[in-house]
This record gives sequence, structure tokens and C-alpha cells, in this order.
Amino acid sequence: MHYNWLAKLPPLPEDFSQLDSPHALAAWELSQFFSEKGYHLELIPEMGDRFQIHNNIISGGETGLLYGAYAAIRGLLSGAPIPEESAPCYSLRMINCWDNMDGTVERGYAGRSLFFEGDQFAYDPARLRHLGRMMASVGLNVLCINNVNVHEPAQGLLGELLPDLSALADLFRPFGVRLMVSVDFSLPLRADLSTADPLDAAVQDWWSRVAALVYREVPDLAGFLVKADSEGRPGPFTYGRSHAEGANLLARALKPFGGVLVWRCFVYNCKQDWRDTSIDRPKAAYETYQPLDGQFDDNVILQVKNGPFDFQVREPLSPLLLSLEKTPLALELQLAQEYTGQQIDLYAMAPMWQEIFEDLPTNRIQAIAAVSNLGRDENYFGHPLAAANFFGFGLLAWNPKADPTDMLSQWIRLTYDFTPQQAETLLQSMLRSRRIYERYTAPLGLGWMITPHSHYGPNPSGYEYDAWGTYHRANHLAVGIDRTAAGTGYLSQYPEALQARYQDPATCPELLLLFFHRLPYDYVMQDGRTLIQRIYDDHFLGAQEAAELEKALRALPFPEPDRLVILARAAKQTANAANWRDVINTFFYRLSGIPDQKDRKIYE
Amino acid sequence: MHYNWLAKLPPLPEDFSQLDSPHALAAWELSQFFSEKGYHLELIPEMGDRFQIHNNIISGGETGLLYGAYAAIRGLLSGAPIPEESAPCYSLRMINCWDNMDGTVERGYAGRSLFFEGDQFAYDPARLRHLGRMMASVGLNVLCINNVNVHEPAQGLLGELLPDLSALADLFRPFGVRLMVSVDFSLPLRADLSTADPLDAAVQDWWSRVAALVYREVPDLAGFLVKADSEGRPGPFTYGRSHAEGANLLARALKPFGGVLVWRCFVYNCKQDWRDTSIDRPKAAYETYQPLDGQFDDNVILQVKNGPFDFQVREPLSPLLLSLEKTPLALELQLAQEYTGQQIDLYAMAPMWQEIFEDLPTNRIQAIAAVSNLGRDENYFGHPLAAANFFGFGLLAWNPKADPTDMLSQWIRLTYDFTPQQAETLLQSMLRSRRIYERYTAPLGLGWMITPHSHYGPNPSGYEYDAWGTYHRANHLAVGIDRTAAGTGYLSQYPEALQARYQDPATCPELLLLFFHRLPYDYVMQDGRTLIQRIYDDHFLGAQEAAELEKALRALPFPEPDRLVILARAAKQTANAANWRDVINTFFYRLSGIPDQKDRKIYE
Repeated sequence: MHYNWLAKLPPLPEDFSQLDSPHALAAWELSQFFSEKGYHLELIPEMGDRFQIHNNIISGGETGLLYGAYAAIRGLLSGAPIPEESAPCYSLRMINCWDNMDGTVERGYAGRSLFFEGDQFAYDPARLRHLGRMMASVGLNVLCINNVNVHEPAQGLLGELLPDLSALADLFRPFGVRLMVSVDFSLPLRADLSTADPLDAAVQDWWSRVAALVYREVPDLAGFLVKADSEGRPGPFTYGRSHAEGANLLARALKPFGGVLVWRCFVYNCKQDWRDTSIDRPKAAYETYQPLDGQFDDNVILQVKNGPFDFQVREPLSPLLLSLEKTPLALELQLAQEYTGQQIDLYAMAPMWQEIFEDLPTNRIQAIAAVSNLGRDENYFGHPLAAANFFGFGLLAWNPKADPTDMLSQWIRLTYDFTPQQAETLLQSMLRSRRIYERYTAPLGLGWMITPHSHYGPNPSGYEYDAWGTYHRANHLAVGIDRTAAGTGYLSQYPEALQARYQDPATCPELLLLFFHRLPYDYVMQDGRTLIQRIYDDHFLGAQEAAELEKALRALPFPEPDRLVILARAAKQTANAANWRDVINTFFYRLSGIPDQKDRKIYE
Repeated sequence: MHYNWLAKLPPLPEDFSQLDSPHALAAWELSQFFSEKGYHLELIPEMGDRFQIHNNIISGGETGLLYGAYAAIRGLLSGAPIPEESAPCYSLRMINCWDNMDGTVERGYAGRSLFFEGDQFAYDPARLRHLGRMMASVGLNVLCINNVNVHEPAQGLLGELLPDLSALADLFRPFGVRLMVSVDFSLPLRADLSTADPLDAAVQDWWSRVAALVYREVPDLAGFLVKADSEGRPGPFTYGRSHAEGANLLARALKPFGGVLVWRCFVYNCKQDWRDTSIDRPKAAYETYQPLDGQFDDNVILQVKNGPFDFQVREPLSPLLLSLEKTPLALELQLAQEYTGQQIDLYAMAPMWQEIFEDLPTNRIQAIAAVSNLGRDENYFGHPLAAANFFGFGLLAWNPKADPTDMLSQWIRLTYDFTPQQAETLLQSMLRSRRIYERYTAPLGLGWMITPHSHYGPNPSGYEYDAWGTYHRANHLAVGIDRTAAGTGYLSQYPEALQARYQDPATCPELLLLFFHRLPYDYVMQDGRTLIQRIYDDHFLGAQEAAELEKALRALPFPEPDRLVILARAAKQTANAANWRDVINTFFYRLSGIPDQKDRKIYE
């Protein structure tokens, strides 16, 4: 077993009875690397997650000591600079697991659930402690363990399963990791109340009593996560109430115990009629939540996906993140590679995150969350290199301005014993990987040309006549949706500077061109190529680059079992990329009838 | 509960101990309708399924008596002429259930399995006796109870589940219904043999011993049904053996007990690369089986789907059915409306069957089978009118030249107490229903423009870049696959008369035009319309007719609960038809840019 970026750390002890706090764990971790004359720990509780390292003294809060210890160890092992002082940008740095209690993981690409099997808790404590260590080593501090689509019997997490939840919380506590639970807004109905209406006094009272019961068992629970009125989940709309009324109901129940209520803003019409062009899905979240700004209690956090669609390779920033003034926000990212190669295709996310925070001031959000890419596979992530996204997300949550090259370099040095040249090869492969994937899939911000439901591989019109609101409306002359004022008007949801950037196809970033504009195939791009030629060129290039990636990875001395897994997946990626290339090129060639200027093979 | 075409028969007795044979059942059924001076039964065993009715004497074999009794009762209740003498065209008249032991039914649209739940046998004997009565009432005599895709634990039907199988056979025996079992070709591996190679002596010996065990428990088992080397199922190809060698292995094991081995010919490459135009899926069955003609044992029956694809609305007859000279054949139809509306959209199959037997001489096949449309829904069929397909299939299996109007009229008169005018309205609705469905779905024999996997609703390119071999290759100028000698050469598999009919687009039946030919959108049809205009016209007409169907059904006094179910489904059909119309028209309009000459609404 090769334990990824913790590969050079000794295994955790089997007996954890002495390591009953982050402080104790910090001391133990340091003791493995440094002599008696190594670091001393100075607990200053009010420092919380913060730490300082001066000479051989690490001072910090209970968790700050642990983060300081891991910073020192990471520095020792990777050569990364050890900070003299550090504090996280966000206090809530969360992993959202979409695990079901039957053992499946929604959009999971690393095996079955680490927590559940057979409709009950079922885990290996050592495996979960290692997960806790992975989280703590990069500063992640909250773990939401169950799917936001709450399927039975996960409703019981707030009831008959509380003793199990409590045991799990105990397990993660030494790692400074607090649990969160996804809850079902209609839960009162399960308890035989006649309604789940947030304005009903009996419902309010019921939730308060439930919260009290929950916090008696798990006093440091971080709070609840809710997906409501979204893709068929129950919510306040059932009762004609707003999402502020719905969220506040739960927030008030949690308030006495210091819990937060995280409310996902992934609300749109998923039963749209494709013929109805008056609806434009990216507009939905802003339309739902912007008018509610100021109506949420102070322990509500609205969790917003980075883009207005759903984790496509490239989307503009969600305008909702830039428009709420009075409501705490969490940015939601997705480590699970649902649309981005499913941990088969290489896809390092750090460059994408960097772009997000170019548009998003770090102080516009108060928390950060990512959908988990974890599972029961031996290496936790399916693809060993997908671990870099989990690792990097921790660093990003601590410091959203962290540099992708620094992040990935550090991960590589911690994970593999490579020569500088080998490390550089891997670094460049990872840094390029997202643009490569982007080139061979849907062109220029269009998104969604993916196999419906499974979301791996191409199907350019698979969602075109479906109810999900994701259309390209390509015909024999043009492709894309006009989202300016002349079109759906989505653009008006942005601040003026961004409106100005996106408004004109001539100044719109080319990689977002078909997100914002409908353009003819003979539209001339900035470099003089036509749109259709650019599509062909990108796809030929992307597939070629995927083959080059595979070649580069084959030349690297990965340890087993990583090597076997990485190379098998790289071969799949090369074939996938070639198929994407051909499907997308053929799709546009059949429509447009315009041949490739370089006369490369496009299938009829 | 309204028991469909048996609605006017009294319920079966709860105590079946006296009705222990078809003969006894025949006497009981007659006694419910006719006085002491009614029919007398004369058993002449060697007459088998045949019967004669002279004056008040029905003579026949054990099952012949039963079929004679039902013929008399159907005549009495429906006014249909009672034959003086009748014999079935085929001795094996079979229903194939695709039921899994977990209770699901593959491609089932009438609820869960009638036989299985929770990985075991689980049924209501009264409900199954009613099924036996439905089968016997129309002369069906074999029931294959489990899915041809044999999922665990159904492998145990030839082992630990034999006592259950035996009990079920006992239950159906009074109805003249014999069971058949779908078996897994790799079963010897489950029994810890090291191979399932049909030429291995240990394997041959093993199957002989299994057959002996099976026939000890179920002496009248009809035989085994096998799907091998198809869509991922195991088969003789694994061992480099032919399908003759594979089929003969099992046939020889069954031979001592009088069993038949039914071998499905649904073999094709389901992992085709869409870019590889050298493969044409409709050619596959002929290429696999035609060279083996003469190599099969005499108790092998090759079961061939009516068309070369897979139960599309319209396909030409499978050339395999016309080419084998020395091998017994079964025609396989599908009552389950997988691609034909899923028992939501009205789809009476009798007109389609009539067309099949216009091309297929009745003596070219020796047996007939249909995939079941049964399930645990109260009415057995999901849609009450879908029962007419089950009923009609029985009549067809007895006499493939049975007239669709006669079949459906008889079914209507047995099922509902309608005035002649109401009955005529329903008859015409049913007779038109298949052409209506055809008009609003994929055009002119093209097929496959259906939502992948679910197979309900339109998705014109859902399978276009997939591995299933079902492509239309539509571009901005033309659509379809040329299957003549100039194209894939599929046409050469037909006898010369059919080749001549299909060869020239000018003489090819228009409803199969895009099955055999690739044509430009401005191709001029026989009536002077262009191909694209014909596509638009058909789709506008089909959707309008679906709405008319709904209106006609709304005006009929169906008894409850049929009415509620029929009208709810008719409303869904109307919406489905409108969506199909718009998706297909938009798809071709986007590609071709050619507007509708009548300026009707086509979405952009």
C-alpha cells in the first residue's frame, strides 16, 4: 500500500486511546520526525486554527497545534517553506460526501462508501483514521458524511442512528474534524407530523427538540447540510414558503448549540421543456436567492457551486457569488470528477481554482466545501493522482491564493521519490491536464456534450431535447445560446465589469465564447481562424496531447500499485480523448458541411 | 377488478384439487356456461392439441379438449364462429418472461415479476392460475419463466430451486402450460467444473446429469432457452466453438427426456466502434447462423427475432428466417412494448404480425415465441388494451393467417360491453395505433431515435456515437445507411425477389426507405413530396392522430378501473407524440435548414 502524500509518514498506531485530542496527535506526529530537541507545543486555546512557529516552538489553538505540526512535517519532507505564522482564510473547510447508506456513492469513482454498507454504518476505523489524518494534514476540518440526496435509512442519522454518528464523531475528533449531516427537509413527516411547513409552530418545536437530541450525542456537530426543492428533493416550496423561511427554521434549531445550517443553492427547473426558450437554467440560482438577501439568520450559510450550471470543465463564475451582500456564502467545488473524467482521465483542478479566485474576491465567501472524490478503493481516490485534488483543496481552503504550481509540486514531492526532472514532468502533466481535457470535450464553454446520466464520454445531443435545461441548439449554421440582453438576459446578473467583459464576442474570453454567445461556424476568432476550424483544431490537439500525457506518465517510475492503476487509466484516457475528438468533429462536420482546412480525418 | 377478455367468465375455484388436468378443467369451464345438455368431451389422446366440435361433442387430445372448450366459450361470448375442426400451426407456442429473481422484469412495463421477489419464488397461486387460464384460452402452451439474461440466483433453477420449479409446473399443468427455463451456458463453472467447453466430455456428462435431475422433478419441462455470446452473456465462442456445437451440447442432454433446446440468434457486436463502417449490425445474425445450417441436432430450435435489429416499429423481415433450410426455427416477437410505447402509448400489434407473415411463409418456422408483456399490475399488462396483444398472439400462434380485424373484434367483444358503434371506434383506434406511433417516431424505417437505455421518448442521436451499431449518420444533406451492394451489402442476404423489391429507392416500400437507403432531404417521394417534407408531414400527422386517439378513447364507456388507466396513459401518449413530433422535426430542420412548406411550427 502506497499512502499517497502521507507515504513518508509512519502508520498511525492501532491503539488510539492516548491520542485523544488534536494536541496529543500533534505531539505524536512530531515525535516521529523530530528528536527530543524538536518542536515544543504551546497551547493557546483562543488561537483556534491559527498557529505560529518560532524557533522550536509551535503555538496555536488545539487544532492550530495540529496544523502547525503538519506544516512542519510537510516542510521537512517536501522542502516547502515552513510558515512563521498561519491562519486559514475560512473557518469552515468542508468535504461533502455523497455516500448512501446502501454503500453506493452518488457520482463516486473510487469504489463504495467508506462509511456505510447494507443500510448501516460499516467501516474500518484504521481506514477512517487515515482519512482524518489526510484531512488534518491539509487543514480540512468538517466532514459531511452522507449524500445531500438523503435516501432512507439516512434519515435516521438524526434519530435511531445517533449512537453510530456519535461513535464516528469520536473517531474523527483527534484530527480536528467535526462531522456534518445532510438532512431531509421533510423529516418531520417521517416523525408523523402532518406537515413540514417551516412556519408551523409544531414543526419548529420538533426541529428544536431533534437538534437538542442530536447535540446531546454529538456536542461538536458542525451543523446540517440541506438540498431542498432541487432535483426532486422536498423543500419549503411545498408549503409556499421561501428558502429563507426554510433555512431559518433549521438554523434556529441549531443556534443554541452553535451549529450552522448550510443550504445549497442548486435550485433550477429540472423538468424544463426544451421547446421553452424563455427559461435559461444558469439564471435560476440568482433568481431564487438574490431577492432573499438579508432575510437569512446569521448562522445560515448559502452554499453555491462555482459556476451557474453544474461542475462543467469551464463555466463563468456564478453571479450569485458576486451579488449577495448580507448572507454568508460557501463556495462549492467538486473533487469527484463527475463531468471531468471520473478519475480515469487526468484532471488536476488547481489551475481551475486559481481562475475562480481571479474573479471571486476571497472575502466574498465565508466558507468552502468540496464534493468528495473518496471511496473504498485501496488508494481512496480511484486514480492515485486524483489525490492531488483532495490535497490541493485543503491548501486552497486554507489560502485561496495558493499557487497551483506550489501546491502540486509539494504534493508530488510528498508522494513520490522522483528526481527533479521526473517531478517536473509530472508537474507539467498535471498543470496541463485540465486544458487538455477541455480541448477534447465540449468546445469553448459549451459544456454538456456528455453521455447522459453516466457523464463519461461524448454524446453531443444526449441532453439536447431533454428536461435538464442544458442546450446548445446547434444547427447547420450556428451553435450556442445568446445570454446577453439580446438573448436570455443572463448576463445582466453580473457586476458591470464582468458584463462588459463577456458582452461582446470580440472581447469575451474565447474559452467562454459559446457559453455566452450564439455564433456562426464561420465566425472569425481573434487569431483569424474560423470558429469551426478552432473547434476542429482544439479537438485534434487535445486528443494528441492526451496521448502525450500517457507517454509522459509511462516514462515515470511510479511505485506499485500506483503505476499499474495510473497507466491503465492513462490508456483509457487516450482512447476516450480520441473518441471525443472524432465524435465532436463529426457532429459539427455533419451539421456544417465545412471540411477541416488541414484535411485531417473527420469521420462522415 | 376487471379481468380483461376473461371478464365474463366466472372466477376459478380456490380449491383446484379436482381440476388436475386440462380435461377436467375443460369440463369445469364448460359447466359454467352450458347446461347438462351442453358439450360432451371425448378424449382422443393422439389428437394432442387438435380438437373437433360436432354437434355437442368436443373431441380432442388432453389439451385439445381444453382449447375446444375455450373456442366454444369464446364463440358463445363473442359471437366468433366456432370451428368444426382446428389444429395449431405450431406445436410450441411460447411466452418468454424476462423476469429476474429479485422481482424486477427486464423491459417490463406492467409492474414487478409475477413469479419472483427477494431472490426467491414468491407468487399468488390464484393470480398465476388466472395467467394459466389466459394462456390456455388462446392456445398458448409454453411459459419460459425467467430472463434470458440469467442473473443469480436464477442459475439455481436447475439445482437447488428445482422443488420450487416443480411446484410451479404442477400449478400450470391443468392449463396445458409447460414450463421452460432460461439457462446460463457457463453453468458448469458454477458447479466447479474448470470449463464449460461444449466439446469437453466432463461438461457433456455434467449437462446430461443435470438434465436427468431436472426431468425427475419436472417430467414435462418443455426444455431450455439460451441466450449465448450476446450482449455480454457467456457462450461457446469463449471456447472457440461454434453455436452449433454449443446448442447441440444442451440438446443432447435434453434429448432422452423429449426436451427441446431453444437457442436465440440475437448475436451481434454490441461494442462496435461507430467509426467503423465495415460493420453493419443487421448482417450479424445471418452471418453467424446461415453457415451452420445442417449442423444442429433435430431437437434444437433457433429462435430469431422478426427483424434484423431489435423490435423496432418497422423492420424488414430477418433474412435469417428465409435462409435456413435444415434447421427448425422459432419466430420471436415482443409483446413487451420496449420500443413501441411501453404500454403507455397504444400499440396494437396484429397489423404488424400480418405484414410479417406476408413475407414469411408459415411453414418456414416450426415454433413461435413472444417476449412477455406481463407483470404484477392488477390488470397484468399495465395498459388494459395491451392485453389485446397477448390475446392476439395466442390466436396468431395457432393460426398465423388470423385476420387482425377478427382478432381485435373478438377481443373487444369479450372484454367490454360496448355497442357495435363503440366497439367499432375502439377497433379502428387499435387498428390505426401502430401506424400512428410509427408516424410520430423515427421516420421511414430508420428506427433507434429513442432515448438510450430507457427506450421511451425521442433522442435522435442518443445512440449515434455509441457502441450498439444503430446509426442514422444524418448530416446536413442526407440521412440513412445504404444497405445495397453499393453500401454495406446487407441486402444480398435476402432471396432475389426481396432484393429486387428493396434495391431501388423508387420501388422500395416507402416505410422502409431509410432502412435500406441513404437519401438526400430533397429526394422526391412517390407522391411528389420531398423526403424532408414527408418527414415533417408524417410527424405533424402522427401527433395529431395521437390526440385524436385520446379523444376517441375518452368517449368510450370503459369500466373502472380500466377507464382511469387508459385515459391517464392516453394523455401521456398525446404529450409524448407532440414531443416526438417536435424533436424529430427540429432535429431534421436544424440539420437541413429546409423549412416546412406548410409553415407549421418547427422549433429552432
